[in-house]
Amino acid sequence: MSEVRVGIIMGSKSDLPIMQKAADALLKFDIKSEINALSAHRTPNEVHEYVKTASDRGLQVIIAGAGGAAHLPGVVASGTILPVIGVPIRAGISIDGWDSLLSIVQMPPGVPVATVGLDAGRNAGILAAQIMATGDAQLSQKLVDFKAKMREDVIAANESINT
Amino acid sequence: MSEVRVGIIMGSKSDLPIMQKAADALLKFDIKSEINALSAHRTPNEVHEYVKTASDRGLQVIIAGAGGAAHLPGVVASGTILPVIGVPIRAGISIDGWDSLLSIVQMPPGVPVATVGLDAGRNAGILAAQIMATGDAQLSQKLVDFKAKMREDVIAANESINT
Amino acid sequence: MSEVRVGIIMGSKSDLPIMQKAADALLKFDIKSEINALSAHRTPNEVHEYVKTASDRGLQVIIAGAGGAAHLPGVVASGTILPVIGVPIRAGISIDGWDSLLSIVQMPPGVPVATVGLDAGRNAGILAAQIMATGDAQLSQKLVDFKAKMREDVIAANESINT
Amino acid sequence: MSEVRVGIIMGSKSDLPIMQKAADALLKFDIKSEINALSAHRTPNEVHEYVKTASDRGLQVIIAGAGGAAHLPGVVASGTILPVIGVPIRAGISIDGWDSLLSIVQMPPGVPVATVGLDAGRNAGILAAQIMATGDAQLSQKLVDFKAKMREDVIAANESINT
Amino acid sequence: MSEVRVGIIMGSKSDLPIMQKAADALLKFDIKSEINALSAHRTPNEVHEYVKTASDRGLQVIIAGAGGAAHLPGVVASGTILPVIGVPIRAGISIDGWDSLLSIVQMPPGVPVATVGLDAGRNAGILAAQIMATGDAQLSQKLVDFKAKMREDVIAANESINT
Amino acid sequence: MSEVRVGIIMGSKSDLPIMQKAADALLKFDIKSEINALSAHRTPNEVHEYVKTASDRGLQVIIAGAGGAAHLPGVVASGTILPVIGVPIRAGISIDGWDSLLSIVQMPPGVPVATVGLDAGRNAGILAAQIMATGDAQLSQKLVDFKAKMREDVIAANESINT
Amino acid sequence: MSEVRVGIIMGSKSDLPIMQKAADALLKFDIKSEINALSAHRTPNEVHEYVKTASDRGLQVIIAGAGGAAHLPGVVASGTILPVIGVPIRAGISIDGWDSLLSIVQMPPGVPVATVGLDAGRNAGILAAQIMATGDAQLSQKLVDFKAKMREDVIAANESINT
Amino acid sequence: MSEVRVGIIMGSKSDLPIMQKAADALLKFDIKSEINALSAHRTPNEVHEYVKTASDRGLQVIIAGAGGAAHLPGVVASGTILPVIGVPIRAGISIDGWDSLLSIVQMPPGVPVATVGLDAGRNAGILAAQIMATGDAQLSQKLVDFKAKMREDVIAANESINT
Repeated sequence: MSEVRVGIIMGSKSDLPIMQKAADALLKFDIKSEINALSAHRTPNEVHEYVKTASDRGLQVIIAGAGGAAHLPGVVASGTILPVIGVPIRAGISIDGWDSLLSIVQMPPGVPVATVGLDAGRNAGILAAQIMATGDAQLSQKLVDFKAKMREDVIAANESINT
Repeated sequence: MSEVRVGIIMGSKSDLPIMQKAADALLKFDIKSEINALSAHRTPNEVHEYVKTASDRGLQVIIAGAGGAAHLPGVVASGTILPVIGVPIRAGISIDGWDSLLSIVQMPPGVPVATVGLDAGRNAGILAAQIMATGDAQLSQKLVDFKAKMREDVIAANESINT
Repeated sequence: MSEVRVGIIMGSKSDLPIMQKAADALLKFDIKSEINALSAHRTPNEVHEYVKTASDRGLQVIIAGAGGAAHLPGVVASGTILPVIGVPIRAGISIDGWDSLLSIVQMPPGVPVATVGLDAGRNAGILAAQIMATGDAQLSQKLVDFKAKMREDVIAANESINT
Repeated sequence: MSEVRVGIIMGSKSDLPIMQKAADALLKFDIKSEINALSAHRTPNEVHEYVKTASDRGLQVIIAGAGGAAHLPGVVASGTILPVIGVPIRAGISIDGWDSLLSIVQMPPGVPVATVGLDAGRNAGILAAQIMATGDAQLSQKLVDFKAKMREDVIAANESINT
Repeated sequence: MSEVRVGIIMGSKSDLPIMQKAADALLKFDIKSEINALSAHRTPNEVHEYVKTASDRGLQVIIAGAGGAAHLPGVVASGTILPVIGVPIRAGISIDGWDSLLSIVQMPPGVPVATVGLDAGRNAGILAAQIMATGDAQLSQKLVDFKAKMREDVIAANESINT
Repeated sequence: MSEVRVGIIMGSKSDLPIMQKAADALLKFDIKSEINALSAHRTPNEVHEYVKTASDRGLQVIIAGAGGAAHLPGVVASGTILPVIGVPIRAGISIDGWDSLLSIVQMPPGVPVATVGLDAGRNAGILAAQIMATGDAQLSQKLVDFKAKMREDVIAANESINT
Repeated sequence: MSEVRVGIIMGSKSDLPIMQKAADALLKFDIKSEINALSAHRTPNEVHEYVKTASDRGLQVIIAGAGGAAHLPGVVASGTILPVIGVPIRAGISIDGWDSLLSIVQMPPGVPVATVGLDAGRNAGILAAQIMATGDAQLSQKLVDFKAKMREDVIAANESINT
Repeated sequence: MSEVRVGIIMGSKSDLPIMQKAADALLKFDIKSEINALSAHRTPNEVHEYVKTASDRGLQVIIAGAGGAAHLPGVVASGTILPVIGVPIRAGISIDGWDSLLSIVQMPPGVPVATVGLDAGRNAGILAAQIMATGDAQLSQKLVDFKAKMREDVIAANESINT
């Protein structure tokens, strides 16, 4: 767990509480990430630079979150062949998340964004881990354990209802 | 009418029938435009170059049309201080135009896009002319005449119903 | 900065907090504006008079905000050749802003309204400045500086996350 | 049935097939109407004149149909105390009728529009007859007969299924 | 103002705050109304009886409000030739008012409901007054005065902004 | 299979192609049904009568289909304690099925309608059979066989792809 | 009332306040139920086991509630021929209930889910009782009494308004 | 290119034209896939078996497409730690794709589905290749070449407009 392998980027610093969950989820699988708040519209060159150097800096997956006319995930995907996970943010200027979701998922042919649910920062982190686990038996095992743990938690919670 | 003053750009060549209407509307006001089909996602560098040089090439307004996760107008607006008019395209991958509209109009603070209606290429051209007419008495007069002509057309059509 | 060059008009006095942001944004560019609360439905004659005299009073752009069945921007646009910027208001009777947005952006052929995002009073002011900057080198430079300042603010905020 | 008592107005001549159904429905109740195609945005003065003189010309109800950013019914209602029936048109530039419906029904306090269903020209005519029947026993009886006839038609159609 | 001329009916007692506004608006025009909370689904026979006797009891207009799968206005309209004004209620089980609005406005051919905006109890009262004013010069004058008063209130509010 | 046990009712004869599928599905399970086209709004008394006598006539389940402001299923449910299955119809006046679906599913407390998918006449028939199978071992077995057959059909279709 | 005849299952323990209403409604009709919180996605095997044994354990109806991408009701329906009632939950990750509703009601041919309104746990319980009452005269009578009681409550509430 | 590394699965054989595009896209990158049409609702056991053995059979990514209440991608994701790409299908029973999209993207915490746009089979294939390229320099280079080729195609198409 020495080097940063996942880049987390968000359109506004106010998205941090949601995107931090992606970092936290990754840490559970011992995957280090970095977080940046760079706007596709206010800092296009910085985003461009970030994306262009992502692969060389060792990033394997990029997680991008944004709200409203949420262009950041698509702009990131346009500049790299790394898989890009998009997190539609519901808060702030967004019209209940509809604009965020559609702006991210409805990408044109050739430039996909792997979209997760509204505000689903944690799921973005888990998906990144799943992607990195293809061909990494150790990480795969951690995901298997995580799934088993989730199952146990649900069963325990269910038992608590009926006692 | 010697030089190009309006840049029309669209995300896909298939948007041409709608965006051509913008060029046609501008021609009615003796304003020359140029049309390009450049994708924010497949040719980000070309779009970047196009926008960066727009002002120096004499462009005063940019009209950008796109569908689906329609990032082109916003990406253009991020790189210039020229007014950018966005045309949401309804066809193709779009979900009835909702994604196109929301992806264009819901821009974050600081980077507005002047959005017109779905497939409203012609209105985009007229709006560009209105923008260029602020401080141009001759063009203003042409717009006044255009409004008068529209009125007469409606009145004539109305009379045709009742005769 | 001696004369009023932008007219800001809204359908109800309760829209003032949002529309004031347009005036504030214009002031940053040393552009003077006036604000009126006139209803397209309750004071149609006053709106008509306001629009008819707008050009002669020196207005170059009109910003109109309204919510619900938001007719004000379109009614204003029907009476002038000045560019009209529409601000859909989300609050009050509006059904989450959908009615406001659609009532403003979906204008018929010949009478465009330059629509910005929901409650985006500030962006309306910036867009008005961009429109007035076409052919005004000094104002253009102010907009370039504004864009540079926005970029710096984002970069500073980003650095604050990572320290 | 000598004088025109209902004014039918629509935003575009292309709405005629739908609005003609209102006139036809009224004729079934021996109520004479007139049809005009006048745009709230392209002929605001003509609409204004039409509305201002409506009452003196003997109109008792106005039926107004429009699509997209459908301002006509509201603009008509702003200028008269006659009941205004709004017909949202689904075709043309409209986004499946949602913009037409919301632009018509979501009127601000003080200026109601009696909205019927999408493309429901016929129901608009019937509603106008119902309004005019308050205090007109003869017309009321015609409506009672109409309702009875509808019922018989449904029963007859039902019997045709089961034979 | 001796007799009740407008029946106000709502699907649930919890709709009273909104429907009371209809009664209040009518009172401004010296029109007496009665309010009942009867459910189309839980008291169908009572609704049926209410509607069947409405005309004979002197009612000239019925205002019906309901939320969710809002059947009450349509069920009332099915049983009378009196004009029925529908008020879609947004609160409670409703999905942001969409179900209420669509359940009321989209009536089948032959049975219109005059729909007003979400929670627009006051506008329903005004519309009822407008309907009753067709052929009642005194009530018409009151509506003219009301419109003038609204105009003055807007103008006064506007002046308060600019002083 | 001697007596009719399921009543199928629809708001308009034009809904027959969809509702016939419910009858056909029931026949596969040897359940006899009857079909009627009776409108909640145009023949309220006939619907009332139909519902009131349903139980005594031996009906055990009622399937009701309607489109637009689709009140029929709810009106039926208001008059009986039999389970009522609602089928939202997408065609005709409906706004893409949204009005039909919401008008049927969003019933108030105390009067549920068992709603199936848009135009899902066949599923309504199957659901009716499932309801009638509670406590009927023979019908239950037929449903088990039906489920097995569906599974085999999917497997066979899948094999046809890969050969 | 000795044995459990209805199974209530929900995707998350946080859905308990809504699903408990189903159990409470059933108790009013002296029907015993059991409640489990098992996730279709986190405990697929437990759900599978639950469904497979449902019939043999004496369950006659299953009520399943879930929110967001609400797969639980459909997954339950895929494994049993018992009638499955789906309750779309609006809270938590759901986008105002739209995802929950559509994920539950729009089931493919052959596998219906009897969907009730958003958060309509109580109606789900009543519908289950109605289903179990087909062929159970005693339970039918209880439902008739329940309907009569509802009617009386509405009438009493109505009288409280007018006194 | 000897072994199958991507599993493509769809809810209905009628989805084949869209899902075949995923296979075709993968072939461009010399990645072999297999296609199956297995329904989450009609063949739950087969889907369960398919998922449980996926990893051992050498699959690294699963692409799942479905429409309406589209549970297949989520059901697949519940049974494996492999990354699952979801393709919302718009055709057939779907309500313009809204149900398909929301049923797939809005997954609960812990079980993400990487959702692409409506009918975006081709993008699903490209995303799968991007996922498999993390740590595969040769495949990465193919994706870089693909991106360069897309860029050239757009530039060539753009030149064809302007000549």
